Amino acid sequence: MKVGILGFGNVAAATIESFLANQDLILAKARVPIELVRIATRTPSRAHGRAPVGCQIGNDPHALVDDPQLDVVIELTGNVPLGRELVLRALEQGKHVITANKALLARDGAQIMACAARAGRRVLFEGAVAVSIPIIKTLREAAAANRIASVVGILNGTSNYVLSQMSEHGADFSTALAEAQRRGYAEADPTLDINGEDAAHKITLLASLAFGVPIDFEQVRFKGISDIEREDIEFAKRLGHQVKLIAQAKRVGGGLVIGVQPTLVPNRSMLAMVGSSMNGIALQGDLLGSAFLYGSGAGGKETSSAVLADLLELANGSESNSATGAYNMGFRDAAPTDAIAEGRPESMDAFYIRLRLDDRAGTLAEVSRVLATAGISAHSLLQDAAQGSLTDLVVITHPVSEERLRHTLPQLRHAAGRDHSVVVLPVLEDCGC
Amino acid sequence: MKVGILGFGNVAAATIESFLANQDLILAKARVPIELVRIATRTPSRAHGRAPVGCQIGNDPHALVDDPQLDVVIELTGNVPLGRELVLRALEQGKHVITANKALLARDGAQIMACAARAGRRVLFEGAVAVSIPIIKTLREAAAANRIASVVGILNGTSNYVLSQMSEHGADFSTALAEAQRRGYAEADPTLDINGEDAAHKITLLASLAFGVPIDFEQVRFKGISDIEREDIEFAKRLGHQVKLIAQAKRVGGGLVIGVQPTLVPNRSMLAMVGSSMNGIALQGDLLGSAFLYGSGAGGKETSSAVLADLLELANGSESNSATGAYNMGFRDAAPTDAIAEGRPESMDAFYIRLRLDDRAGTLAEVSRVLATAGISAHSLLQDAAQGSLTDLVVITHPVSEERLRHTLPQLRHAAGRDHSVVVLPVLEDCGC
Repeated sequence: MKVGILGFGNVAAATIESFLANQDLILAKARVPIELVRIATRTPSRAHGRAPVGCQIGNDPHALVDDPQLDVVIELTGNVPLGRELVLRALEQGKHVITANKALLARDGAQIMACAARAGRRVLFEGAVAVSIPIIKTLREAAAANRIASVVGILNGTSNYVLSQMSEHGADFSTALAEAQRRGYAEADPTLDINGEDAAHKITLLASLAFGVPIDFEQVRFKGISDIEREDIEFAKRLGHQVKLIAQAKRVGGGLVIGVQPTLVPNRSMLAMVGSSMNGIALQGDLLGSAFLYGSGAGGKETSSAVLADLLELANGSESNSATGAYNMGFRDAAPTDAIAEGRPESMDAFYIRLRLDDRAGTLAEVSRVLATAGISAHSLLQDAAQGSLTDLVVITHPVSEERLRHTLPQLRHAAGRDHSVVVLPVLEDCGC
Repeated sequence: MKVGILGFGNVAAATIESFLANQDLILAKARVPIELVRIATRTPSRAHGRAPVGCQIGNDPHALVDDPQLDVVIELTGNVPLGRELVLRALEQGKHVITANKALLARDGAQIMACAARAGRRVLFEGAVAVSIPIIKTLREAAAANRIASVVGILNGTSNYVLSQMSEHGADFSTALAEAQRRGYAEADPTLDINGEDAAHKITLLASLAFGVPIDFEQVRFKGISDIEREDIEFAKRLGHQVKLIAQAKRVGGGLVIGVQPTLVPNRSMLAMVGSSMNGIALQGDLLGSAFLYGSGAGGKETSSAVLADLLELANGSESNSATGAYNMGFRDAAPTDAIAEGRPESMDAFYIRLRLDDRAGTLAEVSRVLATAGISAHSLLQDAAQGSLTDLVVITHPVSEERLRHTLPQLRHAAGRDHSVVVLPVLEDCGC
């Protein structure tokens, strides 16, 4: 099996290094020999001396994709428009594709998977989500016979590092982000990590694998962590919770809810144990019950583990003229009808609400009256001693519809005395782990 | 793909029920249609009305295995000698085999895998270990490019339930075991669960998958939980640890250590969070770093999830006349030489030691002198107020060779004043999670 690699960044370099370091092991597990024969990169000089002997190093990605000797193209450009063009062209020419490009798959996955299906070729992407956790293979194969109820995960290591720093060291958001950048857990431009978009790319793919719905990034709502204040992390801790950036895809009634947002996670949940830049995913299925998977979400070497697993999968599963193995997105076509999302169902969640109150008699009574009138009941409640003329009231509600809660917010603000801001965060109920 | 099932116990009945319940989903993911066409059981009457329409129900397992229309035999007899005979006969006749029979695979796996290799057929067994955790697939495929450093797990749900009851409710061993039996977490004869043998069967298989060594149950030392006293669980808790029945396979120097024994697990480890009858597995590899997987270890429905995943794997990966997909035990033949165990290497572990001391001046000094002379240093130490003329001294040591510790025990007993018993348990050092 002859393999070409597009790109020579961190992940590509690590993939080649790991392949060479563990070649004995990899070849002992492969039904056919695997050869890395060609690399295309904008900076060929970086690759010289680091590629296998005899590997051709060039700077023309199109020539690589067109090379008739290749069976597999590994796309590691990290670039969406270029990646799309190259992946589609590789598939059209009968090559199997491995990619770790989650943004590409989340945005253009439907087109790419349709192209792969027409060509009868595989698109494997274990390196696109939570690299040290075999979540793609788990959803596509290990849990394949289950009706999945929910996939709930911490899928962005940068955000988790920042939130963990804020929780453990009382840092504020910008200090924690600077620390993450200093340590290499955040990129120079961390926008996609911090604003939730990267996690949204990933949950888009997991939702499609879990429920058989088409890949559709536009349906996924996401919100990041840049507004999270130290105070809320502290209050959450005092109420037995951690604030985490939670991505989830869950069945609610006849439809699906898919989204990313900062969420309070109870300490008893394994997701609360996911610290530093690690990832964790809780899974619920009708047969397996609950499972939880934990591991690194990024890193060149860690991603190479996933990319090389995909390469072995191709070496062991794909005949030259037909694809074997699971379907690329688990399902042959669309999902059975009961798994298809219809509209945006109303889900009931518990919420954390922090109100800044005027510290005067009657304010608490007025706030309580507004909540009671709206049918929102408190599960736990915390009020701090006043600082000056203001005090914080924190409520964790019993499950309530988000819409009803949003409608009540103006009245709560009014009841609080002035137009103080109100912080509202969802609270993760049962995810089984 | 035509499938026959051997046995109609709890797991077989659940497998058929799950197959029928989720048939739409399963067929939407399979490249070829899957039909359950034949069942052989000693109690055919149990199966009537619960099998698919047209499925033949009989009581002759040999006739089933010999049936030329079958492509796949699912062995769920739970019987070792009968299972061996039927599995070998099925393979020799060109059938793929799925089994959840860990005792069979641990004891006769080498013979079965050799037979499968000769026949070019697959033996899949995701249901044999930690059923809701895709650990077989993870080691065989997802982590396949890694040099595995260690696999450390809680693999027996019954033992974990008993230890969790003892820890959470202060129950003694026999009370906790009775409760486990009452709740259906332990069988009428729980010997294999409680004495560590079941976990040893499982770690035998995981070690072979992780390291490529032949399946050899005789090399695996195991010790169960029936000697664990409530006092030690309490002392461990006060020192920040949980007592768990830990199965591990790890690379030490040039060899492997594979075994099962009650072990103190630090509270910061995710393994300490594995309560009730759940299973958890920590994995370390040179590329992926550390990962942790958690889920149910038993149950009919949960096992059916694994068995049906194996069935989909066959439907998607195996041509009628050749096996595709990963090799049954990951590796084609033997492992690369560096992974092969040689002898029993000496590993360094920390240990928990509880000594019952005569409560008189000088005893502690004498015990300390014995430890110091042996070069054993204490990481933490706890001494309780005396009860009568006796008191307990608990030491957690820094890493020391087990052999040296064992040699020192007679002197420690002597120093303690009389021949009181000494409790020694290993302490899990770093498993990465």
